[in-house]
Amino acid sequence: MHLATLRTNAGNRAVAVIENQYVDLQAADPTLANDMAGLLAELPQNLKKIEDAAERASAAGEFVTGELLAPITRPGKVICIGLNYRDHAVESNAPIPDEPICFSKFSSSVIGPEETIELPAACKTVDYEAELVVVIGRGGRNISREDAFAHVAGYTVGNDVSARDWQIGRPGGQWLLGKTPDTFAPIGPYVVTADKIENPSDLAISLRLNGETMQDSSTKELIFGVDEIIAHISQLFSLEPGDIIFTGTPPGVGMARKPPVFLKDGDVTEVEIEGLGVLKNSVKQL
Amino acid sequence: MHLATLRTNAGNRAVAVIENQYVDLQAADPTLANDMAGLLAELPQNLKKIEDAAERASAAGEFVTGELLAPITRPGKVICIGLNYRDHAVESNAPIPDEPICFSKFSSSVIGPEETIELPAACKTVDYEAELVVVIGRGGRNISREDAFAHVAGYTVGNDVSARDWQIGRPGGQWLLGKTPDTFAPIGPYVVTADKIENPSDLAISLRLNGETMQDSSTKELIFGVDEIIAHISQLFSLEPGDIIFTGTPPGVGMARKPPVFLKDGDVTEVEIEGLGVLKNSVKQL
Repeated sequence: MHLATLRTNAGNRAVAVIENQYVDLQAADPTLANDMAGLLAELPQNLKKIEDAAERASAAGEFVTGELLAPITRPGKVICIGLNYRDHAVESNAPIPDEPICFSKFSSSVIGPEETIELPAACKTVDYEAELVVVIGRGGRNISREDAFAHVAGYTVGNDVSARDWQIGRPGGQWLLGKTPDTFAPIGPYVVTADKIENPSDLAISLRLNGETMQDSSTKELIFGVDEIIAHISQLFSLEPGDIIFTGTPPGVGMARKPPVFLKDGDVTEVEIEGLGVLKNSVKQL
Repeated sequence: MHLATLRTNAGNRAVAVIENQYVDLQAADPTLANDMAGLLAELPQNLKKIEDAAERASAAGEFVTGELLAPITRPGKVICIGLNYRDHAVESNAPIPDEPICFSKFSSSVIGPEETIELPAACKTVDYEAELVVVIGRGGRNISREDAFAHVAGYTVGNDVSARDWQIGRPGGQWLLGKTPDTFAPIGPYVVTADKIENPSDLAISLRLNGETMQDSSTKELIFGVDEIIAHISQLFSLEPGDIIFTGTPPGVGMARKPPVFLKDGDVTEVEIEGLGVLKNSVKQL
Protein backbone atom coordinates (compact mmCIF):
# COMPACT_ATOMS: atom_id res chain seq x y z
CA MET A 1 0.00 0.00 0.00
CA HIS A 2 1.16 3.54 -0.80
CA LEU A 3 0.21 6.10 1.84
CA ALA A 4 0.46 9.86 1.41
CA THR A 5 -0.67 13.15 2.90
CA LEU A 6 -2.78 15.34 0.66
CA ARG A 7 -3.62 19.01 1.16
CA THR A 8 -7.29 19.24 0.21
CA ASN A 9 -9.94 21.91 0.55
CA ALA A 10 -11.04 20.05 3.67
CA GLY A 11 -7.56 20.21 5.23
CA ASN A 12 -4.71 17.72 5.25
CA ARG A 13 -5.87 14.13 4.74
CA ALA A 14 -4.13 10.76 4.97
CA VAL A 15 -4.75 9.02 1.66
CA ALA A 16 -4.01 5.80 -0.17
CA VAL A 17 -2.41 6.25 -3.58
CA ILE A 18 -4.03 4.04 -6.24
CA GLU A 19 -2.59 4.49 -9.73
CA ASN A 20 -1.97 8.21 -9.21
CA GLN A 21 -5.39 8.77 -7.67
CA TYR A 22 -6.07 9.36 -4.00
CA VAL A 23 -8.54 7.76 -1.61
CA ASP A 24 -9.34 9.60 1.62
CA LEU A 25 -8.92 6.72 4.05
CA GLN A 26 -10.95 8.04 6.95
CA ALA A 27 -13.80 9.02 4.64
CA ALA A 28 -13.74 5.45 3.32
CA ASP A 29 -13.56 3.91 6.81
CA PRO A 30 -14.33 6.22 9.74
CA THR A 31 -12.61 3.83 12.15
CA LEU A 32 -9.23 4.64 10.56
CA ALA A 33 -7.08 7.48 11.92
CA ASN A 34 -7.29 10.71 9.91
CA ASP A 35 -3.60 11.59 10.19
CA MET A 36 -0.54 9.76 9.00
CA ALA A 37 1.05 9.27 12.44
CA GLY A 38 -2.17 7.69 13.66
CA LEU A 39 -2.28 5.29 10.71
CA LEU A 40 1.40 4.42 11.04
CA ALA A 41 1.12 3.73 14.76
CA GLU A 42 -1.21 0.80 14.06
CA LEU A 43 0.61 -0.78 11.13
CA PRO A 44 0.64 -3.63 10.27
CA GLN A 45 -2.49 -4.49 12.32
CA ASN A 46 -4.64 -2.00 10.38
CA LEU A 47 -3.21 -2.87 6.96
CA LYS A 48 -6.08 -5.14 5.91
CA LYS A 49 -8.57 -2.45 6.93
CA ILE A 50 -6.63 0.18 4.95
CA GLU A 51 -6.48 -2.07 1.91
CA ASP A 52 -10.20 -2.85 2.09
CA ALA A 53 -11.12 0.82 2.46
CA ALA A 54 -8.90 1.82 -0.45
CA GLU A 55 -10.29 -0.91 -2.66
CA ARG A 56 -13.91 -0.12 -1.82
CA ALA A 57 -13.54 3.62 -2.44
CA SER A 58 -11.49 3.04 -5.54
CA ALA A 59 -14.10 0.67 -7.00
CA ALA A 60 -16.77 3.28 -6.29
CA GLY A 61 -14.65 5.99 -7.93
CA GLU A 62 -14.50 7.99 -4.69
CA PHE A 63 -11.26 9.88 -5.20
CA VAL A 64 -10.09 13.16 -3.74
CA THR A 65 -7.74 15.74 -5.23
CA GLY A 66 -5.18 18.09 -3.77
CA GLU A 67 -1.49 18.80 -3.37
CA LEU A 68 0.79 15.97 -2.32
CA LEU A 69 2.65 17.05 0.84
CA ALA A 70 5.45 15.24 2.61
CA PRO A 71 3.86 11.93 3.67
CA ILE A 72 4.65 12.90 7.26
CA THR A 73 4.48 16.70 7.30
CA ARG A 74 5.99 17.25 10.74
CA PRO A 75 7.75 14.14 12.02
CA GLY A 76 8.44 14.12 15.75
CA LYS A 77 12.05 13.28 14.96
CA VAL A 78 14.17 13.45 11.83
CA ILE A 79 17.05 11.13 12.66
CA CYS A 80 19.93 10.90 10.19
CA ILE A 81 22.78 8.42 9.85
CA GLY A 82 26.06 9.68 8.41
CA LEU A 83 28.74 7.92 6.36
CA ASN A 84 26.72 4.71 6.18
CA TYR A 85 27.95 3.59 2.75
CA ARG A 86 31.53 2.37 2.79
CA ASP A 87 32.52 4.06 -0.46
CA HIS A 88 30.85 7.36 0.52
CA ALA A 89 32.95 7.38 3.70
CA VAL A 90 36.02 6.88 1.53
CA GLU A 91 35.07 9.69 -0.89
CA SER A 92 34.47 11.95 2.13
CA ASN A 93 37.96 11.20 3.47
CA ALA A 94 36.35 9.87 6.65
CA PRO A 95 37.17 6.63 8.46
CA ILE A 96 34.68 3.74 8.17
CA PRO A 97 32.57 4.09 11.33
CA ASP A 98 32.32 1.15 13.72
CA GLU A 99 28.88 2.24 14.95
CA PRO A 100 26.12 4.37 13.36
CA ILE A 101 26.90 8.11 13.29
CA CYS A 102 23.75 9.99 14.25
CA PHE A 103 22.76 13.58 13.66
CA SER A 104 19.42 15.29 13.15
CA LYS A 105 17.42 17.83 11.23
CA PHE A 106 14.60 19.89 12.67
CA SER A 107 11.19 18.74 11.45
CA SER A 108 10.66 22.25 10.04
CA SER A 109 13.12 21.28 7.28
CA VAL A 110 10.77 18.62 5.87
CA ILE A 111 9.10 19.29 2.50
CA GLY A 112 7.15 17.12 0.10
CA PRO A 113 7.47 16.08 -3.53
CA GLU A 114 5.75 19.16 -4.93
CA GLU A 115 7.75 21.68 -2.91
CA THR A 116 10.98 23.51 -3.67
CA ILE A 117 14.44 23.21 -2.13
CA GLU A 118 15.38 26.78 -1.18
CA LEU A 119 19.03 27.79 -0.92
CA PRO A 120 19.57 30.35 1.85
CA ALA A 121 21.74 33.32 0.96
CA ALA A 122 24.13 32.28 3.74
CA CYS A 123 24.84 28.86 2.16
CA LYS A 124 27.34 28.77 -0.69
CA THR A 125 27.93 25.05 -1.25
CA VAL A 126 24.70 23.06 -1.00
CA ASP A 127 24.82 19.38 -1.91
CA TYR A 128 22.32 16.58 -2.56
CA GLU A 129 22.26 13.14 -0.90
CA ALA A 130 19.96 10.31 -2.07
CA GLU A 131 18.74 8.31 0.93
CA LEU A 132 16.45 5.49 1.91
CA VAL A 133 14.17 6.79 4.67
CA VAL A 134 12.69 4.46 7.30
CA VAL A 135 9.27 5.39 8.69
CA ILE A 136 8.57 4.28 12.25
CA GLY A 137 5.22 2.71 13.05
CA ARG A 138 4.78 1.35 16.54
CA GLY A 139 6.88 3.28 19.04
CA GLY A 140 9.33 1.77 21.47
CA ARG A 141 12.57 1.96 23.39
CA ASN A 142 15.41 -0.50 23.87
CA ILE A 143 14.24 -2.33 20.77
CA SER A 144 16.32 -5.42 20.01
CA ARG A 145 17.72 -6.01 16.55
CA GLU A 146 15.42 -9.03 16.30
CA ASP A 147 12.30 -6.93 17.01
CA ALA A 148 13.35 -3.88 14.99
CA PHE A 149 11.36 -4.55 11.83
CA ALA A 150 8.14 -4.85 13.87
CA HIS A 151 8.53 -1.09 14.48
CA VAL A 152 8.97 -0.18 10.81
CA ALA A 153 5.73 0.95 9.18
CA GLY A 154 7.32 1.51 5.79
CA TYR A 155 9.84 3.36 3.69
CA THR A 156 10.07 6.46 1.59
CA VAL A 157 12.62 8.33 -0.52
CA GLY A 158 14.64 11.23 0.90
CA ASN A 159 17.16 13.84 -0.12
CA ASP A 160 19.47 14.84 2.75
CA VAL A 161 20.23 18.31 1.39
CA SER A 162 23.43 19.57 3.03
CA ALA A 163 25.17 22.96 3.07
CA ARG A 164 28.77 21.76 3.21
CA ASP A 165 30.05 25.21 4.19
CA TRP A 166 27.96 25.04 7.37
CA GLN A 167 28.29 21.29 8.00
CA ILE A 168 32.05 20.98 7.87
CA GLY A 169 34.99 22.96 9.25
CA ARG A 170 33.06 25.04 11.79
CA PRO A 171 33.88 25.36 15.52
CA GLY A 172 32.66 22.34 17.47
CA GLY A 173 32.32 20.15 14.38
CA GLN A 174 28.55 19.75 14.67
CA TRP A 175 26.74 19.12 11.36
CA LEU A 176 23.33 20.46 12.43
CA LEU A 177 23.39 23.95 10.89
CA GLY A 178 24.42 22.63 7.48
CA LYS A 179 21.77 19.94 7.57
CA THR A 180 18.69 21.72 8.88
CA PRO A 181 17.89 24.84 6.88
CA ASP A 182 14.18 25.06 5.97
CA THR A 183 13.37 22.78 2.98
CA PHE A 184 16.54 20.67 3.38
CA ALA A 185 14.65 17.41 4.07
CA PRO A 186 12.51 16.51 1.04
CA ILE A 187 10.71 13.18 1.50
CA GLY A 188 8.12 11.30 -0.51
CA PRO A 189 6.24 10.93 -2.74
CA TYR A 190 4.55 8.39 -0.43
CA VAL A 191 5.22 5.82 2.25
CA VAL A 192 5.36 2.27 0.91
CA THR A 193 4.23 -0.06 3.66
CA ALA A 194 6.86 -2.52 4.87
CA ASP A 195 5.00 -5.59 3.54
CA LYS A 196 5.80 -4.43 0.00
CA ILE A 197 9.58 -4.26 0.55
CA GLU A 198 11.08 -7.69 0.86
CA ASN A 199 14.57 -6.51 1.80
CA PRO A 200 15.35 -2.82 2.46
CA SER A 201 19.05 -3.70 2.16
CA ASP A 202 18.69 -4.71 -1.48
CA LEU A 203 17.20 -1.74 -3.32
CA ALA A 204 18.66 0.18 -6.23
CA ILE A 205 19.12 3.85 -5.27
CA SER A 206 20.08 6.70 -7.57
CA LEU A 207 20.01 10.46 -7.90
CA ARG A 208 19.77 12.51 -11.06
CA LEU A 209 20.65 16.17 -11.21
CA ASN A 210 19.01 17.87 -14.17
CA GLY A 211 18.60 14.44 -15.74
CA GLU A 212 22.22 13.34 -15.27
CA THR A 213 22.88 10.39 -12.96
CA MET A 214 25.12 11.50 -10.09
CA GLN A 215 24.57 8.68 -7.59
CA ASP A 216 23.87 5.08 -8.60
CA SER A 217 24.20 2.36 -6.01
CA SER A 218 22.29 -0.15 -3.94
CA THR A 219 21.23 -0.25 -0.32
CA LYS A 220 23.23 -3.52 -0.27
CA GLU A 221 26.18 -1.23 0.40
CA LEU A 222 24.77 0.07 3.70
CA ILE A 223 27.26 -0.46 6.51
CA PHE A 224 24.56 -0.53 9.20
CA GLY A 225 21.21 -2.00 8.24
CA VAL A 226 17.80 -0.75 9.35
CA ASP A 227 17.59 -3.22 12.23
CA GLU A 228 21.05 -2.31 13.56
CA ILE A 229 20.27 1.41 13.41
CA ILE A 230 16.99 1.01 15.30
CA ALA A 231 18.59 -1.16 17.98
CA HIS A 232 21.47 1.30 18.37
CA ILE A 233 19.50 4.53 18.73
CA SER A 234 16.62 3.14 20.76
CA GLN A 235 19.07 2.36 23.58
CA LEU A 236 19.05 6.11 24.11
CA PHE A 237 15.65 7.48 23.16
CA SER A 238 12.13 6.36 22.36
CA LEU A 239 11.00 6.00 18.80
CA GLU A 240 7.48 7.24 18.11
CA PRO A 241 4.98 6.76 15.26
CA GLY A 242 5.93 8.93 12.30
CA ASP A 243 9.57 9.41 13.31
CA ILE A 244 11.76 9.08 10.24
CA ILE A 245 15.34 7.87 9.79
CA PHE A 246 17.51 8.97 6.86
CA THR A 247 19.87 6.01 6.50
CA GLY A 248 22.85 7.62 4.75
CA THR A 249 23.91 8.25 1.16
CA PRO A 250 25.93 6.33 -1.42
CA PRO A 251 28.93 7.82 -3.29
CA GLY A 252 28.64 10.48 -5.94
CA VAL A 253 27.78 13.54 -3.85
CA GLY A 254 28.65 16.91 -5.32
CA MET A 255 31.40 17.88 -2.89
CA ALA A 256 33.45 14.77 -3.74
CA ARG A 257 33.40 15.44 -7.50
CA LYS A 258 36.28 17.00 -9.36
CA PRO A 259 35.41 19.77 -9.88
CA PRO A 260 32.77 19.88 -7.12
CA VAL A 261 29.11 20.27 -8.10
CA PHE A 262 26.69 22.25 -5.93
CA LEU A 263 22.98 23.00 -6.24
CA LYS A 264 21.97 26.25 -7.92
CA ASP A 265 18.83 28.10 -8.85
CA GLY A 266 16.74 26.19 -11.41
CA ASP A 267 18.27 22.76 -10.75
CA VAL A 268 16.04 19.69 -10.52
CA THR A 269 16.92 16.73 -8.28
CA GLU A 270 15.32 13.31 -8.68
CA VAL A 271 15.98 10.57 -6.17
CA GLU A 272 14.76 7.13 -7.17
CA ILE A 273 14.65 4.00 -5.03
CA GLU A 274 13.51 0.64 -6.32
CA GLY A 275 9.90 0.06 -5.29
CA LEU A 276 9.55 3.46 -3.61
CA GLY A 277 9.14 5.77 -6.59
CA VAL A 278 10.81 9.03 -7.55
CA LEU A 279 11.17 12.12 -5.36
CA LYS A 280 11.56 15.14 -7.62
CA ASN A 281 12.22 18.68 -6.37
CA SER A 282 13.28 21.87 -8.01
CA VAL A 283 15.83 24.23 -6.51
CA LYS A 284 15.50 27.94 -5.93
CA GLN A 285 18.11 30.43 -4.77
CA LEU A 286 16.66 32.71 -2.10
CA MET B 1 4.21 37.49 34.16
CA HIS B 2 4.97 33.82 34.87
CA LEU B 3 3.42 31.42 32.35
CA ALA B 4 3.24 27.65 32.76
CA THR B 5 1.54 24.55 31.42
CA LEU B 6 -0.57 22.63 33.90
CA ARG B 7 -1.93 19.11 33.51
CA THR B 8 -5.47 19.34 34.84
CA ASN B 9 -8.47 17.03 34.82
CA ALA B 10 -9.65 19.06 31.81
CA GLY B 11 -6.40 18.46 29.89
CA ASN B 12 -3.26 20.56 29.56
CA ARG B 13 -3.90 24.26 30.16
CA ALA B 14 -1.78 27.38 29.72
CA VAL B 15 -1.81 29.17 33.07
CA ALA B 16 -0.48 32.25 34.78
CA VAL B 17 1.40 31.58 38.01
CA ILE B 18 0.34 33.95 40.81
CA GLU B 19 2.08 33.30 44.13
CA ASN B 20 2.17 29.52 43.57
CA GLN B 21 -1.44 29.45 42.41
CA TYR B 22 -2.58 28.96 38.84
CA VAL B 23 -5.06 30.89 36.70
CA ASP B 24 -6.42 29.19 33.58
CA LEU B 25 -5.88 32.00 31.11
CA GLN B 26 -8.36 30.99 28.46
CA ALA B 27 -11.05 30.36 31.05
CA ALA B 28 -10.40 33.88 32.33
CA ASP B 29 -10.39 35.40 28.84
CA PRO B 30 -11.74 33.22 26.02
CA THR B 31 -10.00 35.40 23.42
CA LEU B 32 -6.60 34.15 24.67
CA ALA B 33 -4.99 31.05 23.11
CA ASN B 34 -5.40 27.87 25.15
CA ASP B 35 -1.92 26.53 24.47
CA MET B 36 1.47 27.94 25.31
CA ALA B 37 2.75 28.25 21.73
CA GLY B 38 -0.36 30.24 20.85
CA LEU B 39 0.15 32.60 23.79
CA LEU B 40 3.86 33.00 23.07
CA ALA B 41 3.28 33.76 19.38
CA GLU B 42 1.44 36.95 20.32
CA LEU B 43 3.72 38.26 23.02
CA PRO B 44 4.21 41.07 23.86
CA GLN B 45 1.02 42.35 22.14
CA ASN B 46 -1.22 40.15 24.30
CA LEU B 47 0.67 40.81 27.55
CA LYS B 48 -1.77 43.42 28.89
CA LYS B 49 -4.68 41.08 28.16
CA ILE B 50 -2.88 38.19 29.93
CA GLU B 51 -2.13 40.40 32.95
CA ASP B 52 -5.71 41.64 33.14
CA ALA B 53 -7.13 38.12 32.87
CA ALA B 54 -4.76 36.82 35.54
CA GLU B 55 -5.54 39.70 37.88
CA ARG B 56 -9.30 39.39 37.43
CA ALA B 57 -9.36 35.63 38.02
CA SER B 58 -6.93 35.92 40.89
CA ALA B 59 -9.06 38.60 42.62
CA ALA B 60 -12.10 36.35 42.20
CA GLY B 61 -10.18 33.38 43.62
CA GLU B 62 -10.63 31.41 40.40
CA PHE B 63 -7.63 29.11 40.57
CA VAL B 64 -7.05 25.71 39.02
CA THR B 65 -4.91 22.83 40.27
CA GLY B 66 -2.83 20.19 38.58
CA GLU B 67 0.68 19.00 37.79
CA LEU B 68 3.18 21.53 36.48
CA LEU B 69 4.54 20.25 33.17
CA ALA B 70 7.36 21.69 31.08
CA PRO B 71 6.10 25.17 30.17
CA ILE B 72 6.37 24.13 26.52
CA THR B 73 5.70 20.40 26.54
CA ARG B 74 6.78 19.68 22.95
CA PRO B 75 8.78 22.55 21.47
CA GLY B 76 9.06 22.51 17.69
CA LYS B 77 12.82 22.86 18.11
CA VAL B 78 15.21 22.40 20.99
CA ILE B 79 18.26 24.33 19.86
CA CYS B 80 21.40 24.18 21.99
CA ILE B 81 24.55 26.27 22.04
CA GLY B 82 27.78 24.60 23.13
CA LEU B 83 30.87 25.99 24.86
CA ASN B 84 29.30 29.41 25.24
CA TYR B 85 31.02 30.36 28.50
CA ARG B 86 34.70 31.11 28.08
CA ASP B 87 35.81 29.29 31.22
CA HIS B 88 33.64 26.23 30.45
CA ALA B 89 35.37 25.97 27.05
CA VAL B 90 38.68 26.05 28.91
CA GLU B 91 37.63 23.37 31.44
CA SER B 92 36.44 21.22 28.51
CA ASN B 93 39.86 21.53 26.80
CA ALA B 94 38.10 23.07 23.80
CA PRO B 95 39.14 26.20 21.89
CA ILE B 96 37.08 29.39 22.41
CA PRO B 97 34.61 29.34 19.50
CA ASP B 98 34.48 32.31 17.12
CA GLU B 99 30.84 31.66 16.27
CA PRO B 100 28.02 29.90 18.16
CA ILE B 101 28.32 26.08 18.15
CA CYS B 102 24.85 24.62 17.55
CA PHE B 103 23.49 21.19 18.26
CA SER B 104 20.03 19.92 19.14
CA LYS B 105 17.93 17.64 21.27
CA PHE B 106 14.72 15.96 20.14
CA SER B 107 11.64 17.53 21.70
CA SER B 108 10.81 14.12 23.18
CA SER B 109 13.65 14.76 25.66
CA VAL B 110 11.82 17.68 27.30
CA ILE B 111 10.46 17.20 30.82
CA GLY B 112 9.05 19.58 33.41
CA PRO B 113 9.88 20.55 36.99
CA GLU B 114 7.92 17.70 38.57
CA GLU B 115 9.37 14.97 36.36
CA THR B 116 12.41 12.73 36.80
CA ILE B 117 15.70 12.59 34.90
CA GLU B 118 16.07 8.94 33.88
CA LEU B 119 19.52 7.48 33.25
CA PRO B 120 19.43 4.88 30.45
CA ALA B 121 21.30 1.65 31.14
CA ALA B 122 23.50 2.40 28.11
CA CYS B 123 24.79 5.71 29.60
CA LYS B 124 27.57 5.44 32.17
CA THR B 125 28.69 9.06 32.63
CA VAL B 126 25.72 11.44 32.70
CA ASP B 127 26.41 15.07 33.58
CA TYR B 128 24.37 18.17 34.46
CA GLU B 129 24.58 21.59 32.79
CA ALA B 130 22.79 24.68 34.18
CA GLU B 131 21.52 26.83 31.31
CA LEU B 132 19.53 29.95 30.56
CA VAL B 133 16.81 28.96 28.06
CA VAL B 134 15.39 31.48 25.59
CA VAL B 135 11.75 31.01 24.58
CA ILE B 136 10.83 32.22 21.09
CA GLY B 137 7.63 34.22 20.64
CA ARG B 138 7.00 35.66 17.20
CA GLY B 139 8.57 33.49 14.49
CA GLY B 140 10.94 34.68 11.83
CA ARG B 141 13.91 34.07 9.60
CA ASN B 142 16.97 36.16 8.79
CA ILE B 143 16.37 38.10 11.99
CA SER B 144 18.88 40.90 12.51
CA ARG B 145 20.71 41.29 15.79
CA GLU B 146 18.85 44.58 16.27
CA ASP B 147 15.43 42.90 15.90
CA ALA B 148 16.29 39.73 17.81
CA PHE B 149 14.74 40.62 21.16
CA ALA B 150 11.40 41.34 19.47
CA HIS B 151 11.24 37.57 18.84
CA VAL B 152 11.94 36.58 22.45
CA ALA B 153 8.77 35.86 24.43
CA GLY B 154 10.61 35.09 27.62
CA TYR B 155 13.09 32.92 29.47
CA THR B 156 13.14 29.79 31.55
CA VAL B 157 15.63 27.59 33.39
CA GLY B 158 17.11 24.48 31.79
CA ASN B 159 19.36 21.55 32.55
CA ASP B 160 21.21 20.29 29.48
CA VAL B 161 21.67 16.74 30.77
CA SER B 162 24.49 15.09 28.82
CA ALA B 163 25.78 11.51 28.61
CA ARG B 164 29.46 12.24 28.10
CA ASP B 165 30.18 8.66 27.01
CA TRP B 166 27.81 9.13 24.05
CA GLN B 167 28.55 12.80 23.37
CA ILE B 168 32.31 12.62 23.10
CA GLY B 169 34.79 10.29 21.43
CA ARG B 170 32.39 8.49 19.12
CA PRO B 171 32.76 8.11 15.33
CA GLY B 172 31.74 11.27 13.49
CA GLY B 173 32.00 13.45 16.59
CA GLN B 174 28.30 14.33 16.70
CA TRP B 175 26.94 15.17 20.16
CA LEU B 176 23.30 14.28 19.48
CA LEU B 177 23.08 10.79 21.01
CA GLY B 178 24.62 11.96 24.29
CA LYS B 179 22.33 14.97 24.47
CA THR B 180 18.94 13.61 23.49
CA PRO B 181 17.95 10.60 25.59
CA ASP B 182 14.37 10.85 26.88
CA THR B 183 14.16 13.19 29.93
CA PHE B 184 17.53 14.88 29.18
CA ALA B 185 16.01 18.36 28.68
CA PRO B 186 14.32 19.50 31.90
CA ILE B 187 12.93 23.04 31.62
CA GLY B 188 10.81 25.24 33.87
CA PRO B 189 9.26 25.82 36.29
CA TYR B 190 7.65 28.57 34.16
CA VAL B 191 8.37 31.06 31.40
CA VAL B 192 9.09 34.55 32.71
CA THR B 193 7.99 37.04 30.07
CA ALA B 194 10.77 39.13 28.57
CA ASP B 195 9.46 42.41 30.07
CA LYS B 196 10.48 41.14 33.52
CA ILE B 197 14.13 40.47 32.58
CA GLU B 198 16.02 43.69 32.09
CA ASN B 199 19.20 42.08 30.79
CA PRO B 200 19.44 38.32 30.07
CA SER B 201 23.22 38.73 29.98
CA ASP B 202 23.38 39.77 33.62
CA LEU B 203 21.73 37.00 35.64
CA ALA B 204 23.23 34.87 38.39
CA ILE B 205 23.11 31.18 37.39
CA SER B 206 23.93 28.22 39.59
CA LEU B 207 23.43 24.49 39.97
CA ARG B 208 23.23 22.48 43.13
CA LEU B 209 23.67 18.72 43.22
CA ASN B 210 22.15 17.22 46.37
CA GLY B 211 22.33 20.68 47.92
CA GLU B 212 26.00 21.31 47.09
CA THR B 213 26.78 24.15 44.69
CA MET B 214 28.55 22.79 41.60
CA GLN B 215 28.12 25.68 39.16
CA ASP B 216 27.98 29.33 40.23
CA SER B 217 28.40 32.00 37.61
CA SER B 218 26.60 34.75 35.72
CA THR B 219 25.20 35.01 32.22
CA LYS B 220 27.57 38.01 31.96
CA GLU B 221 30.12 35.35 31.00
CA LEU B 222 28.22 34.26 27.87
CA ILE B 223 30.47 34.50 24.81
CA PHE B 224 27.53 34.93 22.42
CA GLY B 225 24.51 36.81 23.72
CA VAL B 226 20.87 36.01 22.99
CA ASP B 227 20.68 38.49 20.10
CA GLU B 228 23.84 37.16 18.44
CA ILE B 229 22.61 33.58 18.70
CA ILE B 230 19.22 34.41 17.16
CA ALA B 231 20.80 36.37 14.30
CA HIS B 232 23.28 33.57 13.64
CA ILE B 233 20.90 30.61 13.51
CA SER B 234 18.02 32.39 11.77
CA GLN B 235 20.24 32.86 8.71
CA LEU B 236 19.69 29.14 8.22
CA PHE B 237 16.27 28.22 9.52
CA SER B 238 13.01 29.77 10.67
CA LEU B 239 12.32 30.25 14.33
CA GLU B 240 8.75 29.47 15.40
CA PRO B 241 6.65 30.24 18.48
CA GLY B 242 7.62 27.95 21.34
CA ASP B 243 11.04 27.01 19.98
CA ILE B 244 13.58 27.03 22.79
CA ILE B 245 17.29 27.77 22.86
CA PHE B 246 19.60 26.37 25.55
CA THR B 247 22.35 29.01 25.65
CA GLY B 248 25.27 27.04 27.08
CA THR B 249 26.60 26.24 30.52
CA PRO B 250 29.12 27.88 32.87
CA PRO B 251 32.07 25.99 34.42
CA GLY B 252 31.74 23.37 37.12
CA VAL B 253 30.27 20.48 35.15
CA GLY B 254 30.85 17.01 36.55
CA MET B 255 33.18 15.71 33.85
CA ALA B 256 35.69 18.53 34.46
CA ARG B 257 35.95 17.83 38.21
CA LYS B 258 38.78 15.89 39.76
CA PRO B 259 37.63 13.28 40.39
CA PRO B 260 34.71 13.52 37.91
CA VAL B 261 31.16 13.59 39.28
CA PHE B 262 28.31 11.96 37.39
CA LEU B 263 24.59 11.69 38.09
CA LYS B 264 23.34 8.60 39.89
CA ASP B 265 20.11 7.15 41.15
CA GLY B 266 18.55 9.28 43.90
CA ASP B 267 20.43 12.49 43.07
CA VAL B 268 18.60 15.83 43.05
CA THR B 269 19.61 18.66 40.71
CA GLU B 270 18.53 22.26 41.26
CA VAL B 271 19.25 24.90 38.67
CA GLU B 272 18.60 28.47 39.77
CA ILE B 273 18.67 31.59 37.63
CA GLU B 274 18.10 35.08 39.02
CA GLY B 275 14.51 36.12 38.37
CA LEU B 276 13.56 32.80 36.75
CA GLY B 277 13.18 30.54 39.78
CA VAL B 278 14.51 27.08 40.58
CA LEU B 279 14.22 24.00 38.38
CA LYS B 280 14.46 20.92 40.60
CA ASN B 281 14.53 17.35 39.31
CA SER B 282 15.34 14.04 40.85
CA VAL B 283 17.40 11.38 39.11
CA LYS B 284 16.55 7.74 38.59
CA GLN B 285 18.68 4.92 37.20
CA LEU B 286 16.69 2.88 34.69
